[in-house]
Amino acid sequence: MLSVNVAISRLLGDSKRLVDSESVDLIDATGRTLAADIIAPIDVPPADNSAMDGYAIRFSDWQDPAGGIPLSQRITAGSVPEKLEPGYAARIFTGAEVPPGADTVVMQENCEEADGEVRILKLPAVGANIRRRGQDLATGQKVLSAGQRLRSQDLGLAASLGIATVSVYRRLRVAVMSTGDELRDPGHYLQPGQIYNSNRYTMRSQLSTWGFEVVDMGVARDDPGAVRELMLEAAGQADVIMTSGGVSVGEEDHVKAVVESLGSIDLWRIAVKPGKPFAFGQVRGKPFIGLPGNPVSVFVTLLVIARPYLFACQGSADSAVHAVRQIALFDRKISQREDYLRVRDTGAGVELFSNQSSGVLFSTTWGDGLVRQTSGEEIHEGMLVDYLPYAVFN
Amino acid sequence: MLSVNVAISRLLGDSKRLVDSESVDLIDATGRTLAADIIAPIDVPPADNSAMDGYAIRFSDWQDPAGGIPLSQRITAGSVPEKLEPGYAARIFTGAEVPPGADTVVMQENCEEADGEVRILKLPAVGANIRRRGQDLATGQKVLSAGQRLRSQDLGLAASLGIATVSVYRRLRVAVMSTGDELRDPGHYLQPGQIYNSNRYTMRSQLSTWGFEVVDMGVARDDPGAVRELMLEAAGQADVIMTSGGVSVGEEDHVKAVVESLGSIDLWRIAVKPGKPFAFGQVRGKPFIGLPGNPVSVFVTLLVIARPYLFACQGSADSAVHAVRQIALFDRKISQREDYLRVRDTGAGVELFSNQSSGVLFSTTWGDGLVRQTSGEEIHEGMLVDYLPYAVFN
Repeated sequence: MLSVNVAISRLLGDSKRLVDSESVDLIDATGRTLAADIIAPIDVPPADNSAMDGYAIRFSDWQDPAGGIPLSQRITAGSVPEKLEPGYAARIFTGAEVPPGADTVVMQENCEEADGEVRILKLPAVGANIRRRGQDLATGQKVLSAGQRLRSQDLGLAASLGIATVSVYRRLRVAVMSTGDELRDPGHYLQPGQIYNSNRYTMRSQLSTWGFEVVDMGVARDDPGAVRELMLEAAGQADVIMTSGGVSVGEEDHVKAVVESLGSIDLWRIAVKPGKPFAFGQVRGKPFIGLPGNPVSVFVTLLVIARPYLFACQGSADSAVHAVRQIALFDRKISQREDYLRVRDTGAGVELFSNQSSGVLFSTTWGDGLVRQTSGEEIHEGMLVDYLPYAVFN
Repeated sequence: MLSVNVAISRLLGDSKRLVDSESVDLIDATGRTLAADIIAPIDVPPADNSAMDGYAIRFSDWQDPAGGIPLSQRITAGSVPEKLEPGYAARIFTGAEVPPGADTVVMQENCEEADGEVRILKLPAVGANIRRRGQDLATGQKVLSAGQRLRSQDLGLAASLGIATVSVYRRLRVAVMSTGDELRDPGHYLQPGQIYNSNRYTMRSQLSTWGFEVVDMGVARDDPGAVRELMLEAAGQADVIMTSGGVSVGEEDHVKAVVESLGSIDLWRIAVKPGKPFAFGQVRGKPFIGLPGNPVSVFVTLLVIARPYLFACQGSADSAVHAVRQIALFDRKISQREDYLRVRDTGAGVELFSNQSSGVLFSTTWGDGLVRQTSGEEIHEGMLVDYLPYAVFN
């Protein structure tokens, strides 16, 4: 059996970016993957400006400012200052550009103004209360890298540099297919023998959350011809094809034979729980990922194993998810496989859902994340464990 | 000064849901807030079904199954089984409904089939390999609660219950406004004295990520009339009004006076870094939140202080973010205020960005989250600290 890490490495080794770049308005770029580095085209801030409401002075002129200093100008944010002549001070407001000649701002709380003059009650250090040109970012500095997924603060940073459009990769198109004659769509009554198709919803929602475009192929009947037809349609429309269920050696599982006839398929035995079986291959040159059929296995393999591969296809440079530490509020015997336990974070620690069976999807909705129990690890109440809040996978 | 927790509690105490419910297709409900509990209308699974490809038998008939057992039917997933008569076995596949009369499934690896008969090589325990009706969820059980924000697995769970439409709260409408004559939109050249407006992008992107509808009011000029006009327009269109910058007692800051004239405003001194000043009030009955002007302060107060309030207005029941533990790779002196340090998670621990000034937005884009350094806490390399990955705020 492959370890989870080896499985991910193999997938990444076989991955390449499958999408070209396009230009989008910065405001629409949240969640998109940058296709080019962003280099600061200007200094930030673009000029020395005042960090306070106060008075701008030449420090050397006022070592001992006993009397009043005449005010020569009033500089508000957004206005253009004139040169500060020797012997004068300037009224200045937060964010306003410091006039040439001034080198220090005295906060207004330490001043008294009257009759066009300011008296300084307490002198700060030279250079005080000035945000220096380029102190945040200097022209030419790389601030965001190709392959990064853009978050709100990244948009803010790009905006602060005057950048209004960015080059991002087109959204990866992922075809989603379920297999099984027993599957019924929600909103209809179940016939005997049927169950509702939940994997389609879990997969579509998660793939959309990741910013991918979903091509929904619906359900393939348990019939080789029907599977083949859908598979060819998916290969024609999508960059990656993903199925749930139907990939095993059972005589009613047709996906394997069909994918083999149109490309290639490997069944992977991954030492993960919940999770097996996992299939990887290609259909007419388009990557094929076959997730298990059990709802929890679909969810966990999608987050843990398929996710890094899909992000690589999307052009993301680094999609590794770092576990954090949290206190276990439960005991757990040694597991032979890497076990992704469904837990709830109480703030004081993480507690375990009572039923960790791979069929019980409620275990994933009940809580906030997964505890990764590595192979051979025993968990005791009170110890720190590797915790992966669901949110960090998004 | 208010502690962060007291500030959040006060805001929550003053909050109420501001939106009505609406019905949406389940597939479009990701990120939406449930307006009504979801109660399981059926058992999951809806009937006993096979967990394996194998053979269904009556256990009591075959305590010592030396010879072959005749096969009376073949049951695939989605088909309707007939009653299993005594003395017979049924071929059955994963997910297929177990026939009435059968109580055990023998996995195919432990059987031999020939000439319409199956020979059992190894008998499992009675009841083996059957997923029981209702073992995941029982009819009448509450599975999702009003106020929950729906994630991919929640959609999967609702689908598994046959639910195709859900009642959610309408998206909260948040008006976003920046103030300052110095602000210029990206995509244009800066004039002297100007800087680019980054807060608008950070706020819009983050509010959208949270699933709110943004009403973008643009930039209000530093002029009481202009601020008043925009403020009234915002109060007419949005559920909540949010500004960045302009809320202080400076003579060029008009927001405070305008909000006061149209409703009420309190300036809060919150013991948070970065973060002050923070304003809260109302404009013609619509809640008003005044964030600071510095880009990092905007980002941190938005995540830490404004977020719980906004989610309460959206009808979310519990929006608390739990810090997790991570190893500090840095030292930090005692802070008087609660300090939200911008850090990067290396996997081995979190390292600190070199410049924690509230003006340096790059500190937020460089890394992966915030370390919460509580007032009076000293941080030493190697100790566990409270870590908040940015992702957990989403």
